[in-house]
Amino acid sequence: MKLNKPYYAVIFTNLRTEGDNGYAQMAETMERLARQQPGFIDFESARSGMGIAVSYWDSLEAIANWKNNIDHKAAQQKGISDWYSWYKVRICLVEREYEFNCSTV
Amino acid sequence: MKLNKPYYAVIFTNLRTEGDNGYAQMAETMERLARQQPGFIDFESARSGMGIAVSYWDSLEAIANWKNNIDHKAAQQKGISDWYSWYKVRICLVEREYEFNCSTV
Repeated sequence: MKLNKPYYAVIFTNLRTEGDNGYAQMAETMERLARQQPGFIDFESARSGMGIAVSYWDSLEAIANWKNNIDHKAAQQKGISDWYSWYKVRICLVEREYEFNCSTV
Repeated sequence: MKLNKPYYAVIFTNLRTEGDNGYAQMAETMERLARQQPGFIDFESARSGMGIAVSYWDSLEAIANWKNNIDHKAAQQKGISDWYSWYKVRICLVEREYEFNCSTV
């Protein structure tokens, strides 16, 4: 379905280094902080070997503000030094969407 | 980094029903088939409770062709009847991307 108001998705795909090294606590803190940011819409994540986290935002400005958040900046630095062996970030405009829910059919 | 040639991401977020019911084999077959389609770029997936699968394509036409592929259509039908309690599909234009690889720093 075509959206009345397009919004943005940030797809963060990653591979972890060995061990936790404070990662789980940081991930929880970052999700809680992200949810408090202006323009935040939703967050989804899964990991099985590869990790995929997708956050949804109402504007590019909201994404830039979150990227530059001081606590998030510190986490990004630790991500590079300690937690990730690889990651890729894609900023995407969500153009269409549709949904299935078994309780509605 | 701004892309020279924007491309598309299809974010498929889902919750499974109980049991396998032929799901794992279908998922493997569908990924293999998707990788053979014209316009296919890449596929990434993870599951931990929620499942997130993201496929990347060079055009909306390639996405439509894959959606209408006859084997994929049969899998979609089984998805609704047997495999998923909920899913959401988002079609997105990838506008920017950047990557980190520990071997390059």
